[in-house]
Amino acid sequence: MQLRLGTLTIVGVGLIGGAIGLAAKKRGLARHIIGVGRDPVRLDTARRLGAIDEADTDLARAVAAADCTVFCTPVNRIAEQVAIAVRACPVDAILTDAGSTKQAIVDAIESPRFVGAHPLAGSEKKGVEHAHAELFVGRWTVLTPTPRTSPDALDRVREFWTALGAKVRLMTPMDHDRALALTSHLPHLLASALAGLLPDDLRDLTATGFRDTTRIAGGDVEVWTPIFQHNRLAVLDALDRLEQRLQQFRQALTQDDVDVIDRWLTEGKKVRDALGS
Amino acid sequence: MQLRLGTLTIVGVGLIGGAIGLAAKKRGLARHIIGVGRDPVRLDTARRLGAIDEADTDLARAVAAADCTVFCTPVNRIAEQVAIAVRACPVDAILTDAGSTKQAIVDAIESPRFVGAHPLAGSEKKGVEHAHAELFVGRWTVLTPTPRTSPDALDRVREFWTALGAKVRLMTPMDHDRALALTSHLPHLLASALAGLLPDDLRDLTATGFRDTTRIAGGDVEVWTPIFQHNRLAVLDALDRLEQRLQQFRQALTQDDVDVIDRWLTEGKKVRDALGS
Repeated sequence: MQLRLGTLTIVGVGLIGGAIGLAAKKRGLARHIIGVGRDPVRLDTARRLGAIDEADTDLARAVAAADCTVFCTPVNRIAEQVAIAVRACPVDAILTDAGSTKQAIVDAIESPRFVGAHPLAGSEKKGVEHAHAELFVGRWTVLTPTPRTSPDALDRVREFWTALGAKVRLMTPMDHDRALALTSHLPHLLASALAGLLPDDLRDLTATGFRDTTRIAGGDVEVWTPIFQHNRLAVLDALDRLEQRLQQFRQALTQDDVDVIDRWLTEGKKVRDALGS
Repeated sequence: MQLRLGTLTIVGVGLIGGAIGLAAKKRGLARHIIGVGRDPVRLDTARRLGAIDEADTDLARAVAAADCTVFCTPVNRIAEQVAIAVRACPVDAILTDAGSTKQAIVDAIESPRFVGAHPLAGSEKKGVEHAHAELFVGRWTVLTPTPRTSPDALDRVREFWTALGAKVRLMTPMDHDRALALTSHLPHLLASALAGLLPDDLRDLTATGFRDTTRIAGGDVEVWTPIFQHNRLAVLDALDRLEQRLQQFRQALTQDDVDVIDRWLTEGKKVRDALGS
């Protein structure tokens, strides 16, 4: 764990990018941190909060001296930004990302020095204002190397995420996307469906259950629409599985079959209890 | 708001019953509080925590001097317990409950002195250990009087819940059950369905989104199975509406229609944002 970077460039300094900057600072991982974004005001906020040392709206310029560049932008922008950065950064630099989908991204990137990553940390909150240096601590970050990936780049990207406090595991891009369809994209979709059903006049009749269940529906649409587009087939498959499970319940309820209702709820409770709070 | 009770009897001293006891104590609402339950150990815990003054496992005896009795047991037990209590308590006493369904309960109760209630407060946690005196403060409690209900009993039950800190509103039992099917029972059902889909080996790949969305699936099955039984038709109807909404998303995703995906997610986000955290 002796990775020490001269310059770290973070593209997209929101919740995740900001947390990477704060964690890298706190852990002495980089001497200099450059934040890249389109909005100078938001970049300035990131600088004032100590997540970055320097702000730049020009990607190619910002990666010119970067030993490591990490892309924390919506998934539909990552591949093209990586293509620009690969041409502009030092030849031995490493590149990684924090995108919630992996197959479409790694398919579109030629560089052996890019290693796809997905830190399983986040929030329905957006913005560097909610970032903190411990966001990745004890959480899994999935790396999705491909046959094209340089073993050296993989080692260093693994050290990078480990240095931020994450536990790292490797998966194929496809396995990652299938798993996340179930553990992240389907929950988002359900939260949004449920929220979308609520008429204004029933708002007062919601309690903590409704609020918890729909919380992530408050997530940024600009972030989530491309996630669903990237992971269409796996999400449709996860949705099929959910519909089958709902169908079991519907049938039990229609037949007033208390044993099946009970068993079905018990199965869900058992899984949820095992997850802890 | 000058309701002062001599004896308050709480049947079922878990999270809700315990919170009623603690709130009644703190606000000087009752001189003496009796807790009724089947498990002497749990009743003793409630006594030690200050939620009740006295414990009794015999319902008829425990209501003999009760000016007010409140039933916080699973919804399938309330009507029969009310029937026992009505015969054993003072003739001018009031009775109310905290059940999550109302139509089946009020239909089964003849007494004009019982006023169905549902405090929209709670948690996936169970047990008096998690109860606190402020649980109802600022939250809605729905009362569901019927043509049989005594106006005097309604006034006093309204004062009772108000004295605990709740905001009170009246609804018909059917309107209540239809609303709660959407705002509470359907979320529980979805949380449970989602949790039930998670294979053990994907547990590590869940983050806060999955945890929030499934949290209420940890609720007590003994409490929830009868809720679904009581409110079958309204829950089936809510499930239909959810399936229609999911179908819109499925179609948009199948056709890769980014505008519809975006609009659909935006609608959910707008509703969720309006709810606040």
